[in-house]
Amino acid sequence: MCVTLLTDFGLAGEYAGVMKGVILTIAPDAVIVDISHGIGPQNVVQAAHMIRASYGWFPEGTIHTIVVDPGVGTGRNIIAAVCGGHIFLAPDNGVLTLILDEIPFERAFLVKNRRYALKPVSRTFHGRDIFAPAAAHLSNGVNIEDFGPSVGRSDIRRIDMELPVLDSNGELAGKVISVDRFGNLITSIPEGMVKRCFGEEAGKTVGVRIGGGTIQGFSESYEDVDEGAPLALAGSRGNIEISVNMGDARKFFNIEEGEPVYIFQAASVSCDDEIY
Amino acid sequence: MCVTLLTDFGLAGEYAGVMKGVILTIAPDAVIVDISHGIGPQNVVQAAHMIRASYGWFPEGTIHTIVVDPGVGTGRNIIAAVCGGHIFLAPDNGVLTLILDEIPFERAFLVKNRRYALKPVSRTFHGRDIFAPAAAHLSNGVNIEDFGPSVGRSDIRRIDMELPVLDSNGELAGKVISVDRFGNLITSIPEGMVKRCFGEEAGKTVGVRIGGGTIQGFSESYEDVDEGAPLALAGSRGNIEISVNMGDARKFFNIEEGEPVYIFQAASVSCDDEIY
Amino acid sequence: MCVTLLTDFGLAGEYAGVMKGVILTIAPDAVIVDISHGIGPQNVVQAAHMIRASYGWFPEGTIHTIVVDPGVGTGRNIIAAVCGGHIFLAPDNGVLTLILDEIPFERAFLVKNRRYALKPVSRTFHGRDIFAPAAAHLSNGVNIEDFGPSVGRSDIRRIDMELPVLDSNGELAGKVISVDRFGNLITSIPEGMVKRCFGEEAGKTVGVRIGGGTIQGFSESYEDVDEGAPLALAGSRGNIEISVNMGDARKFFNIEEGEPVYIFQAASVSCDDEIY
Repeated sequence: MCVTLLTDFGLAGEYAGVMKGVILTIAPDAVIVDISHGIGPQNVVQAAHMIRASYGWFPEGTIHTIVVDPGVGTGRNIIAAVCGGHIFLAPDNGVLTLILDEIPFERAFLVKNRRYALKPVSRTFHGRDIFAPAAAHLSNGVNIEDFGPSVGRSDIRRIDMELPVLDSNGELAGKVISVDRFGNLITSIPEGMVKRCFGEEAGKTVGVRIGGGTIQGFSESYEDVDEGAPLALAGSRGNIEISVNMGDARKFFNIEEGEPVYIFQAASVSCDDEIY
Repeated sequence: MCVTLLTDFGLAGEYAGVMKGVILTIAPDAVIVDISHGIGPQNVVQAAHMIRASYGWFPEGTIHTIVVDPGVGTGRNIIAAVCGGHIFLAPDNGVLTLILDEIPFERAFLVKNRRYALKPVSRTFHGRDIFAPAAAHLSNGVNIEDFGPSVGRSDIRRIDMELPVLDSNGELAGKVISVDRFGNLITSIPEGMVKRCFGEEAGKTVGVRIGGGTIQGFSESYEDVDEGAPLALAGSRGNIEISVNMGDARKFFNIEEGEPVYIFQAASVSCDDEIY
Repeated sequence: MCVTLLTDFGLAGEYAGVMKGVILTIAPDAVIVDISHGIGPQNVVQAAHMIRASYGWFPEGTIHTIVVDPGVGTGRNIIAAVCGGHIFLAPDNGVLTLILDEIPFERAFLVKNRRYALKPVSRTFHGRDIFAPAAAHLSNGVNIEDFGPSVGRSDIRRIDMELPVLDSNGELAGKVISVDRFGNLITSIPEGMVKRCFGEEAGKTVGVRIGGGTIQGFSESYEDVDEGAPLALAGSRGNIEISVNMGDARKFFNIEEGEPVYIFQAASVSCDDEIY
């Protein structure tokens, strides 16, 4: 069975490797894949976006192990949730907010049964002592019901993901949620939301305001604009991204994560405008 | 079947993990190995050197998936080429130049058959939507002929790799193509070329000029010189590398990637010089 | 069979990937896990700590391949040692010091049999040419005795690990051996040693002096102190770590790796002090 890891451990230390050792000790046939260990330290919101963007590309039944866990060693619960045919193991700190909001919920359980944890359990590394063995036992076919009491969808903690809103000016207000190593600015605004607000042809008619500049319409690929020019397009996560053809949008706009982005119905778009 | 990945995606984002999810969904038994995701953004030349340095250490039949692809979403083709018993999946942007120049070409095809791609295909992430499923289907035994029309060796794009040349002074002029984390300077000059220019015993007789300094002869290992002293040797890629014993040649010479390096027949080498 | 890799190669170059290619060519069924490739260049002491902290979490019989090898290409030996049911492949440079000191030694051999190395063997990349094929052949079931002559435990090189000492003031003097990406300061002082020096209840009674500050007693989890306050606890490696709840101890104390840490019997601890 496929087991993914998504953590904020980084790759310099032994932490991710040790989790894999624990999994393979219990489930020698598990196929372990790193989604990323580069989540910003304790950045639960970033991890919530990344698991939502990633899980669906893995085989059904995959066990997604999310260890971004500022509350490790406190009373916070650990959740094993089945949504949309995938299993999610995560601390109950809101990291599953987008999974719960966007994917069919099937059932969920607390991870409490010490039979499926290492002994003893440390106070600082539940990734190794609880998450890794739980993922391994699930991979081995242990029933998810055996991990602990059932919890309902609404019992699982949600956090404010600061999703985009249509403001009083009729503008869709979102923000930059991450910047990739090419300098592409990934916004919180799904393309689908733009269409729901401004119509199916919104790509031709909207404007994007960011960092003091404005981009007219969405492009379909980077080369739709001149080299060095900025553009907006629906990126690989399904969200609107701001890029510069053969360039770096982060430097172009001189902005970072968290910066606001607005999408609005442009005042005057001539019908023969063929941007799209 | 073994599938390698070589990209410029970095490891902070979910991109490499998502490609693995797609591959494992289609080909659960594929063995996926990262060559590197640390290619400089859109640095096709660097990727061309790295795949040439790496492919031969993998099992015959390995599917090498190279996604350094500044032209993603434009009309550029994707190539599936069989050379020297290995399969190379890459954008047709010159990244296969050294593979085509140095390894026996067998056959190649365009990757066009949408049956072996995800649906829909995005305009910005062909690594996920075309390359990963193609690699997976190849791993499953799909015939490479089924991916699209056949193309000849000369139809595949080559780029100027700025290979070393023997200049009018009789000096072999190359450059530093990469610097590793130890500060070793990897040059574009293959040891074999030095021997062809200056004889089989060139290691004893040549000089190396770099960053204002000169190194006499090639060493066989770092400890052939005093601690802190510079040396030249044939590195693990088969190219001449400049190092400092227990030190950092990048700092020693204060130079970076792209800097020129010259190898020349040294004027006076006494016969009892036992450098080699 | 499980094969781990621990190197100072970093992940930007192709080196770790090439080692995996060599292993899979010889042993297609090997399960390869990265412990880390982020050891500081040629930092044998750091690698010695990391392999000691990691090996025990992998399945018995795992082959741990440690390539932190400043002496590559010189006459230094390569060791294949069986300790505590695990196999360790490493240069004979002291990187196995803690493994030999802390785990039951079973037997060890020099890795000399060229039958199990690539041909030719380079002078700079034994990771690829000797370590990877040796690990693969061991994974395939080749007898460890076949690699070369037997060596005793005391024949294997040990280095001064600068382990903590009880100084003339009755203070346990250690140092910070690494800093993780959360800014936690991992010290050289095992919790067990603190208990041996200051009693089983030491966690309640000792003080920790570091960077001009003092921390009273050990905590059990980060949240035992206020947000932004420093604490000491037994970390996931079993050593005392200095942290800041929801903060960064490196910045808080403004110190780095190598800095001294002292643990002492605090003068006055009232009995109803409930720190522990």
